[in-house]
Amino acid sequence: MNEIIALLQNHRSIRKFTGDPVSEAQLSAILAAAQAASTSSNMQAYSVIGVTDAELKKQLAVLAGNQAYVSECPLFLVWCADLHRYEKAVRLHADTPVTGNAENFIVATVDAALAAQNAAVAAESLGLGVVYIGGLRNNPAEVSRLLGLPQLVYPVFGMCIGMPDQEPLHRPRLPREAVYHENRYTDNSDAILAYDETIREYMKERTLGKVDTTWSKEMAAKALRPREHMKSFLRMQGFEID
Amino acid sequence: MNEIIALLQNHRSIRKFTGDPVSEAQLSAILAAAQAASTSSNMQAYSVIGVTDAELKKQLAVLAGNQAYVSECPLFLVWCADLHRYEKAVRLHADTPVTGNAENFIVATVDAALAAQNAAVAAESLGLGVVYIGGLRNNPAEVSRLLGLPQLVYPVFGMCIGMPDQEPLHRPRLPREAVYHENRYTDNSDAILAYDETIREYMKERTLGKVDTTWSKEMAAKALRPREHMKSFLRMQGFEID
Repeated sequence: MNEIIALLQNHRSIRKFTGDPVSEAQLSAILAAAQAASTSSNMQAYSVIGVTDAELKKQLAVLAGNQAYVSECPLFLVWCADLHRYEKAVRLHADTPVTGNAENFIVATVDAALAAQNAAVAAESLGLGVVYIGGLRNNPAEVSRLLGLPQLVYPVFGMCIGMPDQEPLHRPRLPREAVYHENRYTDNSDAILAYDETIREYMKERTLGKVDTTWSKEMAAKALRPREHMKSFLRMQGFEID
Repeated sequence: MNEIIALLQNHRSIRKFTGDPVSEAQLSAILAAAQAASTSSNMQAYSVIGVTDAELKKQLAVLAGNQAYVSECPLFLVWCADLHRYEKAVRLHADTPVTGNAENFIVATVDAALAAQNAAVAAESLGLGVVYIGGLRNNPAEVSRLLGLPQLVYPVFGMCIGMPDQEPLHRPRLPREAVYHENRYTDNSDAILAYDETIREYMKERTLGKVDTTWSKEMAAKALRPREHMKSFLRMQGFEID
């Protein structure tokens, strides 16, 4: 195992940061790493908004479900799927629609994710900590308005970056055989039950015995709080995915 | 700049491989890195099919638009968005639908992408080369049938992995100011025109003067070949995204 794989395997989400800023040199290295990620047919169908304005971070923290670390981190990145730039490029030569099919929605969402993950790895290699903020999708229309996102751009997730001021436990993952399949998908139900026990032990340890839950219970609880508004938000933002 | 950021910035897609296999130890390290990536609320809503069977790789290569390297690479990974496992976990406790909104479609697609990018970085750190294969979405229904994907699982993209047998040029990316915005989205049209010239020079060099094109021309050409079938495929596969 090399140093890079050790870093990747050592990832933990950081939600508490020292006051230290992220320097321009660090940001530069992080963005260059993000831009070097693979992108579908070189479309580069993503944008990233770097939020450093204190008032704006506070508003985003509230919109993300009162996640204080969004305002406490020195740099908050909002990773956006962006077909707006692609459309502008296309329109220089053709009057073809760029949306109206799920395909370009997938491309832009994946492009944003690949670039973001490279940024996360680059940040961690610099000793910084990160946490992804899916909570931006609680109020995506308001987030889009605050950041001035045009049609065909949507915020996929946010990312707090800063110097870690905590050392969280590693959260165990599903057993490898649950996610990896050789040559053909195999339906591995036993893995869920085994993992339920793993998570029960982990949560007990993390909460000093206060929380008794399992993975499947957490997943069921999550399913009862769906973000139903995403469909209509995406349509409003110009993404005709269906 | 450290070794990890250098590796990230040095990424190039590899489409020609030596005959060397990917060892079980390498695969193990790659998968552990993938599983350590961030995942929305620990849903881990992805699966990966490792294709080593020669006949199956050949069939996938054809379905991906006759991309020979899909059958020539020793290991072909198919990264899937997977809400099937999540649904099974939820159903142990509640009768809540897990699809019917775009949100879980996004979560599963992003989870697959983050895990895949960690796998790509891990593979490259081991001296292996990778290329993402979006071409799997040319014939996603047939790919799903061959791999036995159940409802609520779809192939987002493939990934060839193997020892590189080529040293491609670096493809220049959009200028940083085209993708990075400070506190607010800025519409940077000049960046497209500047990048058009960058890509013209790059393509001339790469094709020894034979190809004269620009980024926006490539994007327009791509827009004229949409994958219109994705919508109906996703609906067939159980993803009611709209």
